[in-house]
Amino acid sequence: MGELYRLKVAGLERDLHICPLNDKMSIAGFIMFSDVELTIACATELLKKVPDFDVMLTAESKGIPLAYEMSRQCGKNYYLARKGKKLYMTNPTRVEVKSITTENIQTLYLDEDDIEAIRGRRLLLVDDVISTGESMRALEALAEKAGANIVGRAAVLAEGDAAERQDIVYLSPLPLFFK
Amino acid sequence: MGELYRLKVAGLERDLHICPLNDKMSIAGFIMFSDVELTIACATELLKKVPDFDVMLTAESKGIPLAYEMSRQCGKNYYLARKGKKLYMTNPTRVEVKSITTENIQTLYLDEDDIEAIRGRRLLLVDDVISTGESMRALEALAEKAGANIVGRAAVLAEGDAAERQDIVYLSPLPLFFK
Repeated sequence: MGELYRLKVAGLERDLHICPLNDKMSIAGFIMFSDVELTIACATELLKKVPDFDVMLTAESKGIPLAYEMSRQCGKNYYLARKGKKLYMTNPTRVEVKSITTENIQTLYLDEDDIEAIRGRRLLLVDDVISTGESMRALEALAEKAGANIVGRAAVLAEGDAAERQDIVYLSPLPLFFK
Repeated sequence: MGELYRLKVAGLERDLHICPLNDKMSIAGFIMFSDVELTIACATELLKKVPDFDVMLTAESKGIPLAYEMSRQCGKNYYLARKGKKLYMTNPTRVEVKSITTENIQTLYLDEDDIEAIRGRRLLLVDDVISTGESMRALEALAEKAGANIVGRAAVLAEGDAAERQDIVYLSPLPLFFK
């Protein structure tokens, strides 16, 4: 058991593992999977803060429970950008994204049906954590290709410098840990 | 817009796209993402049919909304096997799986904390569709490595020959489409 960071968010407290990212920096791992109580609380609090919207777009996989729960609470659909092209997709739209939590450049795909569903709608982009902003930029690129009207960018946590951003809505900041 | 298959499941009806798998066979694409009504109904009906259990294990990504919703309804935790090793994982356990809906061999990882959480517990394996059974076998392999006590295997749909299996619980069969 390594170092922990005590996070306070949406009226709850959780101890996050601090994981080395490289020689100079560590990050606190925020994982909503398995934690329904946290997912419900974060969805409720985020929905109080976001602007009016028609539909949501999130990215595989960590955004799924949050977007699902927000959709369940507010009755507005969520759509999922996938990291691989799937057999069921017809004519998917594709953008590239570089992540700080995995080593590779990732690619996001959105199915033609989902592109149609967000076209011309007021779209809220949703993710668990905004850090470098790369994932959010990839969602934006998908949304723009689809002709959606981006009305907001929402995340549970804003990591590092992202906490200074004026163009996002979030619940708590998450520090980076420098050696 | 290609051919559609009308699925009846959990008291609801949905039109699924029929997608070619190879020269000889097509499959109907069952996607619960974006469909909260369907996810809730399937979770409710599956929970009526499954044996007593303590915790659930599912696989990234299509199992996530279902396992999340089942957990939300019954109050028992779900754990997620991931398809890539993530930075936040400490000492993950690894098994391999071949999928019929993607071209490659996939690998499932379960974090050490999650391994500890399912060890010795009555475990329900959950997925959206059981088809060749490869994904379910990979979940079983993870569960066995973790020392969990597998008490059931549950899916919304059993595709093709899987509908004949006596060792799974499911809501509706899903045909394969041969040319």
